[in-house]
Amino acid sequence: MKSALFAVALVAAAFAAAAINPAPDRQVRAAEAALSQGRPEYDSRGRLVAPSDYREWVFLSSGFDMSYNEQTATPDSHQFSNVFAPRAAYDSFKQTGIWPDKTILILEIRGGSGLGSITEAGQFQTGQVVALEAHVKDIDRFEGGWGFFSFDNGAAAERIAYDAACYACHQANAAVDTTFVQFYPTLLPIAARLETLSPAYLASSDQVAH
Amino acid sequence: MKSALFAVALVAAAFAAAAINPAPDRQVRAAEAALSQGRPEYDSRGRLVAPSDYREWVFLSSGFDMSYNEQTATPDSHQFSNVFAPRAAYDSFKQTGIWPDKTILILEIRGGSGLGSITEAGQFQTGQVVALEAHVKDIDRFEGGWGFFSFDNGAAAERIAYDAACYACHQANAAVDTTFVQFYPTLLPIAARLETLSPAYLASSDQVAH
Repeated sequence: MKSALFAVALVAAAFAAAAINPAPDRQVRAAEAALSQGRPEYDSRGRLVAPSDYREWVFLSSGFDMSYNEQTATPDSHQFSNVFAPRAAYDSFKQTGIWPDKTILILEIRGGSGLGSITEAGQFQTGQVVALEAHVKDIDRFEGGWGFFSFDNGAAAERIAYDAACYACHQANAAVDTTFVQFYPTLLPIAARLETLSPAYLASSDQVAH
Repeated sequence: MKSALFAVALVAAAFAAAAINPAPDRQVRAAEAALSQGRPEYDSRGRLVAPSDYREWVFLSSGFDMSYNEQTATPDSHQFSNVFAPRAAYDSFKQTGIWPDKTILILEIRGGSGLGSITEAGQFQTGQVVALEAHVKDIDRFEGGWGFFSFDNGAAAERIAYDAACYACHQANAAVDTTFVQFYPTLLPIAARLETLSPAYLASSDQVAH
């Protein structure tokens, strides 16, 4: 019933927007997108479908030349790692300090370039998506609650086997709920306040500088 | 009338979500946020109010050690530049290849660190926000349509004077509508397709590598 009242308020807001704003359709479409985005979808063979709209999810952070995989950067080749979370999962984390079931985090690795920069130094992100990976919390589906996936050219992906290094590394080193919240600057203080930082992270000497 | 139909569809979607989803209130709140986020607000003295929710807008890109201002990185000090756009402005750009009136783009400069990284190399973003700047399109308010602002500790900001270097640099070098779309990899191909790239950018030898 409460949600019905919220929905009525939302319609009132949409009508109010229509009255004062020249482009209400766009805002309503944006609201529709926010309602539906970012839950994991699997195909009939249980493969994770690559989300098409992750670039419009909430940005957690971007690293430079951090290698989560075997690809290592060289002096002439750089890459950025962008991480995104669905809005509903992000909102839930802000309330609880932990990811809700059905969270899907996307790691997008992009090429870096200094060519064409307005400055003499520095790197910006290019149109080249080097890799696209997902970390999915689905408690009934995965051992330990989380599964890793690597998409190849946007095709649906099989779960990476549990004996792969990513599982052990996240389990051992990640600050919250097997996720690297130590690298997500808007979420780390929330986890600290809500006391959801892992004992292993708290005991480590590698706690990040704020 | 079309917007009224959209609104009705949205309510139906909200009710459907309430029926199948354990946390509909959160999704409805997310939709409300999407409806209202990201238009410029000015105080009674005409200063731009710092938006509190920009981290939940759409991420355009992140650069590494690109200096838009006088601060230059040193070997021991690094910084990231994150850029965000409100969802409605982003959606409009995808349709038209140009920013709608009342667009506010936020540039957040964050400290970088390699301490505490799980890898031997690489930099991640820290909790230190070094600078927060805005670029606002408000055709009736600003000469040339756009104004720049730099927030100091979250306080409302006066417009930066028109003779500051940022105006001339963006005018001369930015790929679309005085904004550096050449560094926003999801938007650059849209601007190319919709032919909104500036003549100066098209004529330059500094076009970025895709």
